[in-house]
Amino acid sequence: MIDVKDKKSVCVSGLGFIGLPTACVLATSGYSVLGVDINPEVVNHIQSLKFTLSEPNLQLLLENAITSGNLKISTKVEAADIHIIAVPTPLTSDHKPNLSYLNIAVDALIPHLRTRDLVLIESTLPIGTTESMAQKLHKYNPEIYIAYCPERILPGNIVHELTHNDRVIGGINEDSALKAVNFYKSFVHGDIITTNARTAEAVKLAENTYRDINIAYANELSMIADHLNVNITELIHIANKHPRVHIHNPGPGVGGHCIPLSPWFLASSTPPLTQLITKAREINNNKTKWVIEKIRKTIKENNARVVACLGLTYKPNVPDLRESPALMIVDALEKEAMVLRVDPYFPDTIPLQEAIAKADLLIGLVAHREFQDIASHEITGKMLLDFAGVFE
Amino acid sequence: MIDVKDKKSVCVSGLGFIGLPTACVLATSGYSVLGVDINPEVVNHIQSLKFTLSEPNLQLLLENAITSGNLKISTKVEAADIHIIAVPTPLTSDHKPNLSYLNIAVDALIPHLRTRDLVLIESTLPIGTTESMAQKLHKYNPEIYIAYCPERILPGNIVHELTHNDRVIGGINEDSALKAVNFYKSFVHGDIITTNARTAEAVKLAENTYRDINIAYANELSMIADHLNVNITELIHIANKHPRVHIHNPGPGVGGHCIPLSPWFLASSTPPLTQLITKAREINNNKTKWVIEKIRKTIKENNARVVACLGLTYKPNVPDLRESPALMIVDALEKEAMVLRVDPYFPDTIPLQEAIAKADLLIGLVAHREFQDIASHEITGKMLLDFAGVFE
Repeated sequence: MIDVKDKKSVCVSGLGFIGLPTACVLATSGYSVLGVDINPEVVNHIQSLKFTLSEPNLQLLLENAITSGNLKISTKVEAADIHIIAVPTPLTSDHKPNLSYLNIAVDALIPHLRTRDLVLIESTLPIGTTESMAQKLHKYNPEIYIAYCPERILPGNIVHELTHNDRVIGGINEDSALKAVNFYKSFVHGDIITTNARTAEAVKLAENTYRDINIAYANELSMIADHLNVNITELIHIANKHPRVHIHNPGPGVGGHCIPLSPWFLASSTPPLTQLITKAREINNNKTKWVIEKIRKTIKENNARVVACLGLTYKPNVPDLRESPALMIVDALEKEAMVLRVDPYFPDTIPLQEAIAKADLLIGLVAHREFQDIASHEITGKMLLDFAGVFE
Repeated sequence: MIDVKDKKSVCVSGLGFIGLPTACVLATSGYSVLGVDINPEVVNHIQSLKFTLSEPNLQLLLENAITSGNLKISTKVEAADIHIIAVPTPLTSDHKPNLSYLNIAVDALIPHLRTRDLVLIESTLPIGTTESMAQKLHKYNPEIYIAYCPERILPGNIVHELTHNDRVIGGINEDSALKAVNFYKSFVHGDIITTNARTAEAVKLAENTYRDINIAYANELSMIADHLNVNITELIHIANKHPRVHIHNPGPGVGGHCIPLSPWFLASSTPPLTQLITKAREINNNKTKWVIEKIRKTIKENNARVVACLGLTYKPNVPDLRESPALMIVDALEKEAMVLRVDPYFPDTIPLQEAIAKADLLIGLVAHREFQDIASHEITGKMLLDFAGVFE
C-alpha cells in the first residue's frame, strides 16, 4: 500500500449502509473524516453512539472513530481534499432512477470545492450519470478530479468486504482515475481495476442484473418443476454437476436494495433493448405472488389454522428486511390463518421450537443457518411448504 | 468398471451425431452392436466407410468397429439385450417437439422386444415422454426395463466426452435404473447419477436452457453497450472479476441442434410458466437480425464494396454449420456487397490472408482459433466489425 495518509481530509456524503462504514474505515486508516447526512436524526443517532449496528465490527469501529476525533458527523458539507458521495439512488414508483439525493449532494458540494479536489461517487448510477455530474462540477471549477467507484459489497460482512474486495474505478479522465486509484490503494487490499466512468457504471449494473436474471431462471424453473412434479432441488443439484452449468437457487422472490434496482437502471437508458432484463424482474416479482397463492391453496385444502413462517429477511443470515419478499408473503397470509413469524435475527419473533410445536403448516422462506438444525423428528406429521431449501 | 462384457448385444436406433459414435464405442468395448438407421443412404455410406467424419478419432474407431465384425449396420431393428434410441427429436415450425422419429423407433422395436430387455432413450425429450413411451412398451411386455439417459456432450470432442462425461440416468423404476447404471458403467469413466425419468428429462433441458438464457443476457448486454458507447468485451471482463458473476460471451446468435431446441421443449409442457425462457429465445434470434442491420448500415455509410466474413460455423473450432447464425448473416449480406466467406474448417472458402487483402470491411463472426494469429499490421486501415471477439 502506498502511504498517502498525511492526514488528508475526506468528506463522506450519505451515512447509510455504505457511507457510514466507509467513513469509519477511513477514520481508522489515518484520514480526518467528516460524515455528512442531511437527516438530523441520523446525525444525532450516530453522534450519540446510540446506533445499534448489526454489521460485525462496525459498532466498535464507529466508537473508536468518533472517540479518537478522526470522525466528525454533521448535516453540512465542508471543504475536504476528497469528497465521497454515497447517497441512495432509489427508484421512482414507475421504475425510473431517482437521482434527487445525488443532485442535492452534488449541489451541496459545489460551494466548498477547491482546485484539485477529488470527487468520488459510490452510489449505483444509470450509465452516463458521472459524466453529467462532471459537466455540472466542471462548470464551477474545471480542475476537479472526478471518478465513479461503485461499491461491490454484500450486506452482512461490510467492513471486511470494503477493505478486501476488488474495486472498479471509472475516471472521468486519466488523471482522475490515477488520483482515485491512489486514494483507494491507501485502504483497500483487493485489486483495483481502472476504466472509464461509463464502463464502471455499466459494470455495477451488469453484475447485479446477471444475478437477477439467473435467480429469475431458477424461479421460473421452480414453478415449471412444481407443475410437472419434478423436485427442483434435485433437478438443480444434478444439472449443476455439468461443468458448464451453474443454476442459482430459487427463492420466494428477490429483495434488498441492490439486485432488484440495477436492472431498472440499465433499462432506463435503453428501454427497447432491455426486454430480457425487464422480463426477469417480472418473473422474480411474480414468484412472490405465486408463493402466496400456493400457500393460500394449501391452507384452504388442508384446513390449516396455525402457520409458522420461517424467515423474514430478504436473504439468509442477516437482520435485513429491506424489500424482503418473505415479509410480503407473511403479511399477505395474515388474513388466511394464524401466522407465527419466526426469525432468529429478530428477538421479538416466536422461538423456532415453539412455532414448530404450535403450527399445522411450516413454511420455509429464508434458509437462515439457525434453521439447519431442525431435526426430522421435530417436524414429523407437520405439513411442509419449502420455497428456500430450509428443510433440506 | 464392472465387467458385463459377455458379448451382450446392443441395437442402436438412429446413426446421427450421437448414435453412430455410441455404436462405435460400444463395438470396441466388447459388445455385439447393430446400428440401425431408417435412411438407406446413411446405412450405405457408413457400410462403405465413405463417411467423412470430422470428429477426432471417430473415423478410425468406425473402421475398427466395422472390420472387427462387432458393428453391423442395417435399416432394420433386430432383437438385442439392450436397445438404445438416439433418433433426432427436432422442432415443428411452430416450436413444438416433433416426436415422429421417436415414435417410429419405438414402434419398430416392439416386435423384437423380449422379457428383461433394456430400452434406453438418449434423445432430448419433453418432460414426461419416457413415461409415455414406457406405457406403450409395457402394454406389449410389462417386463421391459426402461430408462432415460440424455447425452450431455459437446460436438468437437464426442468420443472423449461419450466415455468421460458424467451421465444422468432416469429409470422408469428402480430396477430399470440399476440395469442402466450397470450398462453405462461398462464403458463410461465419468460419474453416473441416478434419478427418475422425469427429472433426468428436466435436467437435460434445464442445462441447455441455462446456457441459452445466459447467452441471451450477454447478447442483450452487447446491444445495450453498443447503444451506450461502452466496450462490451471490457465490460464483461471487468464484471467477471466479481467472484459471484459469470457473464457469458455474446455472439451473432445461438445455433447448433441443442441449445436453441431445449428451451422450446421446456416451454411445450408449461407455456404460461416459461416466459423468461421464451424471451431469451427471442433475444438470441433478434441478435442475428441486429447484427445484419448493423453490418448493412456500416456497408452503406462507408460505401464498402468487398466484405470479408470471418467464420461460418455455429461455434468456434468445429466444421459444424447446423443452424449457424453466422451463415444466416453471410447469406443475408449477399445483396449488399461482394462477400468473401472465410472459414478454415471449409477448404473451399477464401483463404484468410487473401480475404483480408481484398476486403474494405472485415466482420468477425466466429472466434476460430485459426483467427487468433491475425497481426494488427495486417488489418491496419481496414474497417472492422466484431461480433464474436475475433480481433481481440
